Amino acid sequence: MGKPQHTVRFRVRYSEVDQMGTFYNSRALEWFECGRVELLRAVGMPYAQMERRGVHLPVVETHVQYGGRAGFDDELEMTTTAAMSGKASVRFDMTVVHAATGRQVVRGYTLHAVTDRSGKCIRPPAWLVAALGAEKGED
Amino acid sequence: MGKPQHTVRFRVRYSEVDQMGTFYNSRALEWFECGRVELLRAVGMPYAQMERRGVHLPVVETHVQYGGRAGFDDELEMTTTAAMSGKASVRFDMTVVHAATGRQVVRGYTLHAVTDRSGKCIRPPAWLVAALGAEKGED
Amino acid sequence: MGKPQHTVRFRVRYSEVDQMGTFYNSRALEWFECGRVELLRAVGMPYAQMERRGVHLPVVETHVQYGGRAGFDDELEMTTTAAMSGKASVRFDMTVVHAATGRQVVRGYTLHAVTDRSGKCIRPPAWLVAALGAEKGED
Amino acid sequence: MGKPQHTVRFRVRYSEVDQMGTFYNSRALEWFECGRVELLRAVGMPYAQMERRGVHLPVVETHVQYGGRAGFDDELEMTTTAAMSGKASVRFDMTVVHAATGRQVVRGYTLHAVTDRSGKCIRPPAWLVAALGAEKGED
Repeated sequence: MGKPQHTVRFRVRYSEVDQMGTFYNSRALEWFECGRVELLRAVGMPYAQMERRGVHLPVVETHVQYGGRAGFDDELEMTTTAAMSGKASVRFDMTVVHAATGRQVVRGYTLHAVTDRSGKCIRPPAWLVAALGAEKGED
Repeated sequence: MGKPQHTVRFRVRYSEVDQMGTFYNSRALEWFECGRVELLRAVGMPYAQMERRGVHLPVVETHVQYGGRAGFDDELEMTTTAAMSGKASVRFDMTVVHAATGRQVVRGYTLHAVTDRSGKCIRPPAWLVAALGAEKGED
Repeated sequence: MGKPQHTVRFRVRYSEVDQMGTFYNSRALEWFECGRVELLRAVGMPYAQMERRGVHLPVVETHVQYGGRAGFDDELEMTTTAAMSGKASVRFDMTVVHAATGRQVVRGYTLHAVTDRSGKCIRPPAWLVAALGAEKGED
Repeated sequence: MGKPQHTVRFRVRYSEVDQMGTFYNSRALEWFECGRVELLRAVGMPYAQMERRGVHLPVVETHVQYGGRAGFDDELEMTTTAAMSGKASVRFDMTVVHAATGRQVVRGYTLHAVTDRSGKCIRPPAWLVAALGAEKGED
């Protein structure tokens, strides 16, 4: 079974653009959050519902590579994939391109612990592991 | 007794400036929060401590007038005053000017309910009323 | 002719919610921007295109009333109307409610000057006045 | 000559904290910006002045590791170092800890191109290379 994958389209907000006329760097992490949230909804595990069930995915690491400009109102397309990373972490990979041209804007990943409400690491629930698919190379 | 008043200096962050080269409009509300927080600390009621004691001041109304530009790294000076507004609300007034010239940047107010942790309105504690001073014209 | 009106749906982002579990107050102004942008697109005057033609609408005043909570991933519906305000300003009014219940979240207005690229006030172009309709009570 | 290093203290803003009671992940990148800006000011090259001279440092890569929680009003201490990375890039490393305890909050780096106003890569000016010191291992 392949990794879950999901694509969303959105427009760059005026509030996200800096004086160089392109999105401010931290905005990529906010977009990545939208990618994760919509992927989880698409595979039947809305994140708000996961949190209500006491399963949290706090971010422990982020990595972003900025590959091109994107200005106010540009329509972008973000593709997100998710997978277990080892036995205890979840990793999302995001790629953002211009919707019209496919020209690259930004890509990166976010790594997440699996915790309870108090922030204590827990064994990932079976339904989470099943939904995200086996880790590549795991046996 | 007069209204409590407090002044802070800060610099405009790169992330706060939009493509017109001046701060994005919503940033004023984030600055106003800093003004409130530092005023409350100065009068001996740090807001984090108030929240731990179960007293919250959720924003119910904001008003902002934009009077001038402020670009990246400009040093600004914000003066905040606080007062009871009627018997159940707290009002903060903020004025932000360029530190070097006094030229106006933005001013406005925020109006706050007094609630418990669950969001239910409560009678303002006596220590809060005492610290903020009698409302102008109240008898 | 009536005022132009436009409605959009969106979800509250995780990054927009504070420790009280509801959206942080300044976020309303970012949402309002989305309402303005989509209304202008809907009436055939995308704001990015207006700016390229040298017509800017810098915010000179904002007013927000907070009427109810909205948490992470709640689906909201924002209705925006626009009108000339006097002969030289544009005013947008926004109302945000829960999409499912119509329960009120936040409403307010933003007032805008009409300027050129350098920030100098200009006479509102005829196409702008025509698109926004006559001011109520103007003759 | 060692790498330039600079330390700043700041408090977590209410607007930066999410519903888990700790800062939202993208905020780290905004803090990192403050670290860079203050380091450059400390070594006599304020970034606003660099931009006016036509030298820009757009972010091309960011990496963040989240090591601990930090709530509203917590006082944090950020240490920033800067160095050339190869002949054409600048790298900043940031470490953020609780000011009172030294307990770790977040650390990471940002990698920057050196460009002109239009975004075209330029040879780093001699004054920039001199200020940042020779790259480790460079001969």
